[in-house]
Amino acid sequence: MHTRFEIATRGPGLYEFTRDVAAWVSHNTCDEALLTLMVQHTSASLLIQENADPEVRSDLTEFFHRLVPPTSDPTMAYLTHTYEGPDDMPAHIKSALLPVNLQILVISGRLMLGTWQGIYLFEHRAAPHHREVVALLR
Amino acid sequence: MHTRFEIATRGPGLYEFTRDVAAWVSHNTCDEALLTLMVQHTSASLLIQENADPEVRSDLTEFFHRLVPPTSDPTMAYLTHTYEGPDDMPAHIKSALLPVNLQILVISGRLMLGTWQGIYLFEHRAAPHHREVVALLR
Amino acid sequence: MHTRFEIATRGPGLYEFTRDVAAWVSHNTCDEALLTLMVQHTSASLLIQENADPEVRSDLTEFFHRLVPPTSDPTMAYLTHTYEGPDDMPAHIKSALLPVNLQILVISGRLMLGTWQGIYLFEHRAAPHHREVVALLR
Repeated sequence: MHTRFEIATRGPGLYEFTRDVAAWVSHNTCDEALLTLMVQHTSASLLIQENADPEVRSDLTEFFHRLVPPTSDPTMAYLTHTYEGPDDMPAHIKSALLPVNLQILVISGRLMLGTWQGIYLFEHRAAPHHREVVALLR
Repeated sequence: MHTRFEIATRGPGLYEFTRDVAAWVSHNTCDEALLTLMVQHTSASLLIQENADPEVRSDLTEFFHRLVPPTSDPTMAYLTHTYEGPDDMPAHIKSALLPVNLQILVISGRLMLGTWQGIYLFEHRAAPHHREVVALLR
Repeated sequence: MHTRFEIATRGPGLYEFTRDVAAWVSHNTCDEALLTLMVQHTSASLLIQENADPEVRSDLTEFFHRLVPPTSDPTMAYLTHTYEGPDDMPAHIKSALLPVNLQILVISGRLMLGTWQGIYLFEHRAAPHHREVVALLR
């Protein structure tokens, strides 16, 4: 059983889609299974993160912006792949540092997330994008 | 087939639980399978790492402490989520940088780990915690 | 169904093996499946990355070389595990930061990679190595 989630983004940050995933899973299994998610891009990531305080998400975005600044920052002048602007190569680096895949156990038809865990797409590009996440339930 | 491993931690560092996982796997399969582990927290990680020299683990802990210092460090003053103390938001950042999931192939009932690979929980908080890792064998 | 890919490396960088994986998958399934890859080392990683411009790969290698420099660099003098030379402990750190596992969905016998996604082994050691990647298709 597979599907595809489409997530519209408007700049860097975390976009939650836990409910969409939970709804699809609960309609398609009432038993034990493994859910695998995979983002089909090299400039966005998947993340399981804290779902309570929005400041966790803005702090995460800011940390990764400082760890991997745009190529307009003098410390990043050594980067050569800059065709699509100053956020191009930093987005590829963040997509190497952060997960392309997530696995979530499904038991009795329910995602086995911890109390404070949500499922997020982490957008690394400045321009709006439509992101594709493929999902497999087995 | 699923189970839950509980790991008691006493401050930042790597806690090995390879033997517990190998024992559970060997009791529950004699064939080819996929083991998936998932930590149910956003302030601890899972890691496959070198299991020979303990200095590898202390060096790893120190590297991540320097890459993501406590919010009491002036370089981290921009972080806003500090309710639970100076190690709160850095723990969330480390849990984004390091794996929430691990997959290990099982062939002939045996974990296909390399010679020097062990399975670890990486604790990011200073206070003692009880950590939950869910496991699925399929 | 499982197999093993062997990848010969000649220093730090990304080594693509997408074609080998796609060929093995297409010979072994004509349906829906989950492919899991796992590297059996703690000084090399797996990565899904941009497969078009080689500068993305050299920029990635350079970024990680600067984020985790050799222990001959004064900023890394605190590291203690240096038995195998200045690139020893940095390789373990990079193998914690970057994936040990990848999962790729297989639908109608085809890897569900995005248009610009390729599968790479990321070598972190300076000396030539033979790297082993185990693969499971279920």
